[in-house]
Amino acid sequence: MTAVYPGTFDPATYGHLDIIMRASKLVDKLIVAVLNNSAKQPIFSVDERLIMLKEACKGIDNIEFATFSGLLIEFVKDCRANVVIRGLRAVSDFEYEFQMALTNKILDDEIETLFISTSAQYAYLSSSIVKEVAALGGNVESMVPDVIGYRLLEKIRGAG
Amino acid sequence: MTAVYPGTFDPATYGHLDIIMRASKLVDKLIVAVLNNSAKQPIFSVDERLIMLKEACKGIDNIEFATFSGLLIEFVKDCRANVVIRGLRAVSDFEYEFQMALTNKILDDEIETLFISTSAQYAYLSSSIVKEVAALGGNVESMVPDVIGYRLLEKIRGAG
Amino acid sequence: MTAVYPGTFDPATYGHLDIIMRASKLVDKLIVAVLNNSAKQPIFSVDERLIMLKEACKGIDNIEFATFSGLLIEFVKDCRANVVIRGLRAVSDFEYEFQMALTNKILDDEIETLFISTSAQYAYLSSSIVKEVAALGGNVESMVPDVIGYRLLEKIRGAG
Amino acid sequence: MTAVYPGTFDPATYGHLDIIMRASKLVDKLIVAVLNNSAKQPIFSVDERLIMLKEACKGIDNIEFATFSGLLIEFVKDCRANVVIRGLRAVSDFEYEFQMALTNKILDDEIETLFISTSAQYAYLSSSIVKEVAALGGNVESMVPDVIGYRLLEKIRGAG
Amino acid sequence: MTAVYPGTFDPATYGHLDIIMRASKLVDKLIVAVLNNSAKQPIFSVDERLIMLKEACKGIDNIEFATFSGLLIEFVKDCRANVVIRGLRAVSDFEYEFQMALTNKILDDEIETLFISTSAQYAYLSSSIVKEVAALGGNVESMVPDVIGYRLLEKIRGAG
Amino acid sequence: MTAVYPGTFDPATYGHLDIIMRASKLVDKLIVAVLNNSAKQPIFSVDERLIMLKEACKGIDNIEFATFSGLLIEFVKDCRANVVIRGLRAVSDFEYEFQMALTNKILDDEIETLFISTSAQYAYLSSSIVKEVAALGGNVESMVPDVIGYRLLEKIRGAG
Repeated sequence: MTAVYPGTFDPATYGHLDIIMRASKLVDKLIVAVLNNSAKQPIFSVDERLIMLKEACKGIDNIEFATFSGLLIEFVKDCRANVVIRGLRAVSDFEYEFQMALTNKILDDEIETLFISTSAQYAYLSSSIVKEVAALGGNVESMVPDVIGYRLLEKIRGAG
Repeated sequence: MTAVYPGTFDPATYGHLDIIMRASKLVDKLIVAVLNNSAKQPIFSVDERLIMLKEACKGIDNIEFATFSGLLIEFVKDCRANVVIRGLRAVSDFEYEFQMALTNKILDDEIETLFISTSAQYAYLSSSIVKEVAALGGNVESMVPDVIGYRLLEKIRGAG
Repeated sequence: MTAVYPGTFDPATYGHLDIIMRASKLVDKLIVAVLNNSAKQPIFSVDERLIMLKEACKGIDNIEFATFSGLLIEFVKDCRANVVIRGLRAVSDFEYEFQMALTNKILDDEIETLFISTSAQYAYLSSSIVKEVAALGGNVESMVPDVIGYRLLEKIRGAG
Repeated sequence: MTAVYPGTFDPATYGHLDIIMRASKLVDKLIVAVLNNSAKQPIFSVDERLIMLKEACKGIDNIEFATFSGLLIEFVKDCRANVVIRGLRAVSDFEYEFQMALTNKILDDEIETLFISTSAQYAYLSSSIVKEVAALGGNVESMVPDVIGYRLLEKIRGAG
Repeated sequence: MTAVYPGTFDPATYGHLDIIMRASKLVDKLIVAVLNNSAKQPIFSVDERLIMLKEACKGIDNIEFATFSGLLIEFVKDCRANVVIRGLRAVSDFEYEFQMALTNKILDDEIETLFISTSAQYAYLSSSIVKEVAALGGNVESMVPDVIGYRLLEKIRGAG
Repeated sequence: MTAVYPGTFDPATYGHLDIIMRASKLVDKLIVAVLNNSAKQPIFSVDERLIMLKEACKGIDNIEFATFSGLLIEFVKDCRANVVIRGLRAVSDFEYEFQMALTNKILDDEIETLFISTSAQYAYLSSSIVKEVAALGGNVESMVPDVIGYRLLEKIRGAG
């Protein structure tokens, strides 16, 4: 099974990395796919996000990294994958994620979305929380690995 | 990947069968496991539920059927499987299912639960709704296949 | 428009009466239909529930009262009604009510369910809360009209 | 009963049209009211939205179309209507819609909001999903009628 | 501030103990109150539950233990307390707890309910999960302290 | 117990004032803290919001008023407080508030968040609803006290 784990990863948190680790054990190949969507006004460029993900996932053999724009479903087909992996944290996630999964099912019936529950200790975590805490000078070391925390501080100081 | 799809299946609905069909395409082997739990007071015996499932799933090659009692996680290990498949329909499902997935994760960290969203047209369906409608004399042919609907009517007439 | 407002009404609360009042202004005829379902183990008989509802709704002209068992949808057709009215209080209501509305839609496409939001001050109220508070000796006068509260006390004393 | 079905309809989807069809059978007159709210930055002008709605609803006799800005409750009174119709899809809808219904109730106690559940197959649908899929080159023919899909493609190409 | 933390505690879990620990730091006196409600069919007697709670909370100075039946609000008044403490885990908790808090507010306006969020790692935990896992032979040492786990095993073996 | 009740208060509604009144009875000192966050584009300046709050809370002895920017948790420590008070209205609130409470717990384990349920009659109220209704010419006198409603009208006329 080849699966795609899409996301904005601006930046990746321990929550995302937990999903990547666990999903990579279940599939033959996991493609971590960074969404290139300028409308979301990310603070990191796609390249920066890719570099951070690669560093944070060092040592996991069956992962590949990619970027995509356009319809997720087209990207998944181009990868010859048939599964999309998504993490679920909370009820508010759930409804949005289901809407996306059902939409993708209508666009291409051959591709399934599989959801993994986020580990309890990361349920509170999101990229926006990490950015907000960092911007206000809070300590994010329990939220992102050092290779990401370091760049986040740099980025915030640069913007300051 | 060998996955277990556990449930009470009292009886299986088109919603369950949709999950079985879709999950069977993603994994090497899917074990549909009927929970033998007398506390739930099922109207069908475990054997009847197994027979109905087998008939309804005829033609799917990579499925096996089993019954289990006791901890799901022990059954999954006995099957040399590492994945539990669960369908998700609604927010109320979601919280219960997450609680179970997190509990199972704590009992055995090697086993993952993967969730599939139920197709939109089956989101309203549950075994209890089917039994309630049938008991009140309603038509359940859009809810369960004939091989199941037939036995359900028999069971209800017998109980009447 | 003839509408049916079904319920167990064991007993009716100010929340139910608020829905009846408001719904009766919108339709030509409102049929308040008491479900005769012994499985729910009501504390009031169907007749007692009907009497209490009639007393509490005195003065509303376009209401009729009835009891039903079996499929709601058959009862609605027998009444030559085409609308079911339901009150919605909270998210947990919402999912159950939607499941029922979709099931009824599948059983008979001609009958619609319309939901009215319960007034904010009655959002906390349910028949079970009223019974629990009364059984523990609490004051329920802000929850049910006197004609109902009086009978509730009698019933609880009788059971004591 | 005269009812108002308000919305942004940017553009109307099969979900909206399903509500219009079903609501129109229940009321004497249904006024489909397009909200003129520039703050929402619609991609279609109010006039374009009106034209698309009219074309998509051809053949339904008891509908009228209108635009409004300002308080919904004032518009409803100006129409000599006493009911607002809203579709409900999911839990997240539910809370927002209830907040609006309660606010409107406080502003004018004489006007009721009635909710209809969206048909299961349209539960995933929203105007934003349609616009997003179309903008990424996906096929929206199962989401909107051709008279709307055609204009959506034109609009997106024009913006490209 | 004197606060009451009511519950069934059949048995207390690490989730309950976390709330007790944290609440006890905020108030002058915390009264942990075991509900004596035979309708819930607890597996431990009220006395057993009290003993287990006392052992698990050894070393916390400002706690008292009590049992109550009847209306919570009357018990709180008898304790000369003015605050009820409740833990919140998930959305389904939330609605039930709010209903109870609003009901209590109506019964006695002087008593407030304060909610504490359960720590992320205990969000999955409930007394029923603990009992179910133990009954099926699973390991509950990450869910309850040894003084409770030991008695739970004894109770289950005795019932076997 | 010294507690901080933080918020944007743009402007304070009867819902906020209800929380302030009830919380002030429970604690030794309540610090109402206005968030100075230009990203939220408030319509009132921090000073205006402070003035309105002070006027609306006249007569409550144990309240202080302050403004803060940066991490809430740092502000709470600077105040020598150990509790954050938040009001909860609905499920959507709940998830966001829990995420914030868990994040704050991770940033500083000594500070607890206590939630109070909003009174039923204010559950629908939010600052945005008040601003929207006022902007459209609706009557907000059941939503905010006159000292706030007056300034809101002034502000809206000035912006018109």
